[in-house]
This record gives sequence, structure tokens and C-alpha cells, in this order.
Amino acid sequence: MKFCSNCGAPVALKVPPGDNLERHVCDACSTIHYSNPKMVLGCIPEWEDRVLLCRRAIEPRHGKWTLPAGFMENGETTAEAAMRETLEEAGARVELGELYTVLSVRHVNQVHMFYRARLLDLDFAPGTESLEVGLFREDEIPWPELAFRTISATLRHYYEDRRGGTFRLHAGDIPPLR
Amino acid sequence: MKFCSNCGAPVALKVPPGDNLERHVCDACSTIHYSNPKMVLGCIPEWEDRVLLCRRAIEPRHGKWTLPAGFMENGETTAEAAMRETLEEAGARVELGELYTVLSVRHVNQVHMFYRARLLDLDFAPGTESLEVGLFREDEIPWPELAFRTISATLRHYYEDRRGGTFRLHAGDIPPLR
Repeated sequence: MKFCSNCGAPVALKVPPGDNLERHVCDACSTIHYSNPKMVLGCIPEWEDRVLLCRRAIEPRHGKWTLPAGFMENGETTAEAAMRETLEEAGARVELGELYTVLSVRHVNQVHMFYRARLLDLDFAPGTESLEVGLFREDEIPWPELAFRTISATLRHYYEDRRGGTFRLHAGDIPPLR
Repeated sequence: MKFCSNCGAPVALKVPPGDNLERHVCDACSTIHYSNPKMVLGCIPEWEDRVLLCRRAIEPRHGKWTLPAGFMENGETTAEAAMRETLEEAGARVELGELYTVLSVRHVNQVHMFYRARLLDLDFAPGTESLEVGLFREDEIPWPELAFRTISATLRHYYEDRRGGTFRLHAGDIPPLR
């Protein structure tokens, strides 16, 4: 941020009165511009013993596999965002179950959340952000070809819980790679 | 948003190519400015059969009671945000337990999340954003004087679960008041 989005004047990084963090502050119109983490919402669409994955047609991680997920938009709930992204990326309709993972990715200012979900039919097809969409059994999951660590963490929890017979929320964080 | 924060030129609301929502777009430098929901993180600090509440010294809801909570900042995890806000607003140190509520408040583009937490000592005191801080038994909770519906929903779930003997995640949404 170099200019004030309210008045167009240049902004400066400074700690506003009563605050303890640097913000982009406009001296011309006194607007304080805050920047906050974003949420990425998605789901684990289940069909019998398989889950739906999408191969990414966009950067970052073009060509890698992911659960359907994307940035939550203003004006929607976390559940609506997860269903919308699943429809956009995989053309897939789901019935959402429980919220399953909430994973902070501090070094990129994001929180990724995944719901469990039941795929309603097999009439899915890649959206513009996907190269292909497929169903995978556990032994077919392309672990080294997964796009993000929140995806592999979510799938790892999912198969562990499935073996244990009980699914529960997993909240945690993904540390930076050294 | 009226001006591009990257180059200072005026921005226009339009749907970028490949998108389906209006964004603030800069025709001068081609930057697309996205706006996304924000997260509010807090906790339910428990001390024996009481929970800690803060009376707000700031708007909105000046003078009303709240669980300690506030906007998550870049560079922190959800858990770190909940602990930081508890320290800032109530001068209170807590050990976090499980993530307990995840409540979308779509009409204000926010998601509020509360952890269960154990208050570590009674050495708390109001921060600059609080008028007073106190411990409340269930029958002392000032229900009509709570600041936000996510606070009353979280406390309602908490006491119901406590009576039932089992705490579980509650994910949902708070609809607009008619």
C-alpha cells in the first residue's frame, strides 16, 4: 500500500495513537488502513470410499492436486464459501457435514478451513481454475503431488479419524518451512 | 475504496475477466483490489464455575459486556490472536483449550471464533479498551447487556454443553436482525 484508498494521498507506516502495531496511515484524511488475514474455505467431498480432488489450472501450484477450496468472499458464511468453491472448481454439488479442520498459516496471513461433505452426484466437471477433477481411494491419493500442506494435513487427519471410527475437529497451525 | 492503493489513480467497480463479482479495479496499473471477511478471535476464560467478561470502553457497544475478543492480525495464528486479545482487553493470561465456536456474521463480513480457556491466575485488570473486567457465575451473566450476538450464542452453547457434560465445536451463523 502506497496511497490512501480513501483520498489518494501517499500513506506512511506508523503506529497510530493507542495502537501497538504499524499501520498504513493517511496524514491527509486520517484514515488508518488495516490489513488482516484471509480465510480459505473448502471441503472434503466424499463418495463411498473415495474423495474428490481437483488438479489446479492456476498458480500457485499449477498442476498440483487440491481439495476444492478458495478465498471466502464478503457477504457469505464459511459454509456457503465452501460450497461455492466446490461448485466453481469441480462443478460438484455437496451436502456439508461438520467443520473439520481450522489451520492457521501464519506466514502467508491465511486460515484454511475444511468441512466434511457428501458428494450428491457424480455429475462433476473441472471449472476454469481446474485441469481435471477425480475421485481417489486412500491408496490412490497423490500425496507428493498435493498443492498445499493444509490439504495433506486435512487428508491425513481424515484417514486417521476414519480408521479410528470417530471424526473430530482439528484446529492447529502449519509452521513455515525452514 | 475510491483510489488505487498501489498507484493513487481513481478505481472503478467492475467484474474482472474470469471473475464473477465486482471488484475495485485500477485501470491505470491494472491492480485488482479484493476485500474479504475478517476474523474476530477470542476465548471463554474459565475460573472454577465462573467466566471472565469485559465491559467495553469503545464503540460499538460501549458499556456492554463481552468475552475478550478482537480482530486477528497478520502474522499470528487463531490461537495466538485469542490469547493476545485476552491479554490486551483483560490483562488476563490463559491456557487455551479447544476451538469452541466458529460463527459467521455475513452481514458485517466477519467470522467470530472462540476457544475454551483456563484462566491462569486472578491477576487481571481492564486494558485500554475495557471499562471493567469481572468473573461471572451462570446466574450472574448480564444477558441483556451482552455486546454481540456471537457472545450470547457462545455462552449459551457453553452452559448447555456444560450441563450435558460434553463440549463440542459449534459452527454456524448469526443471521441479520430483521
